[in-house]
Amino acid sequence: MNDRTTEATAKTEIRTLMDNWLQAVRTNDIKGIAPHYAPDVLAFDAIAQLQFKGKDAYLKHWEACLAMCPGSMLFEIRDLNVAAAGDVAFSHYLCRCGAKEENGTEKASWMRVTVGYRKTNGKWLIVHEHFSAPFDMESGKALFDLEP
Amino acid sequence: MNDRTTEATAKTEIRTLMDNWLQAVRTNDIKGIAPHYAPDVLAFDAIAQLQFKGKDAYLKHWEACLAMCPGSMLFEIRDLNVAAAGDVAFSHYLCRCGAKEENGTEKASWMRVTVGYRKTNGKWLIVHEHFSAPFDMESGKALFDLEP
Repeated sequence: MNDRTTEATAKTEIRTLMDNWLQAVRTNDIKGIAPHYAPDVLAFDAIAQLQFKGKDAYLKHWEACLAMCPGSMLFEIRDLNVAAAGDVAFSHYLCRCGAKEENGTEKASWMRVTVGYRKTNGKWLIVHEHFSAPFDMESGKALFDLEP
Repeated sequence: MNDRTTEATAKTEIRTLMDNWLQAVRTNDIKGIAPHYAPDVLAFDAIAQLQFKGKDAYLKHWEACLAMCPGSMLFEIRDLNVAAAGDVAFSHYLCRCGAKEENGTEKASWMRVTVGYRKTNGKWLIVHEHFSAPFDMESGKALFDLEP
């Protein structure tokens, strides 16, 4: 295989991983989310802490986040870009993230996501994840009403 | 070269790129910052917009950011991690970012950074950059006083 074929294969594998992960996120399924992370994942999440070190700490945070969206979790993605070579890959995309309230109202905003992957023993795992919203310099407040 | 040697070499090259970039950032040198970015860089910056598409748009934003720190730009980094294979690499680190005021007072806070690189024609360039501060769910305010 040449480099181009290898990258195309890796991208397809990453896309499959992402689809499975998305399915788990959208159905509030922590057991489906968990297997996608490496034991030593380092996460920069959008809220609460500067970083989460290791899978246990990050999954505990994930559980707290899922508990905030007891109904349907909204997690729409767009502008996905994947780069891959050998056993290293990264992706970035925008996600409209939030929850659908009982009366049907959607409470969601666009966030930015960057993910780092590593292939170990033939299996891609997420080793790094970075979620965020930008903030306004004047008010110091996160900007929740931006549109792509 | 085996994969391990190749990754070690790539990591050294990325570290050199970062050192040159850091030197330019710390001296408010937009002409030194510019050559590190790919023409089609996609940036998620900590402030103002959801994303900056392309080198021209991002450098314009960089100029506005440098103008906010007319004295010494503080840009201290820690916990750098680099992953590289073939022509793809990513890194993540924490940075204490801000400015030193005229009376010597430092106004800075810890941010999170993730960077994606691509090697083209033998040269590594930044194709993706993600800066952020986490926010507090209650107040919606960015958290500027967190310590690693």
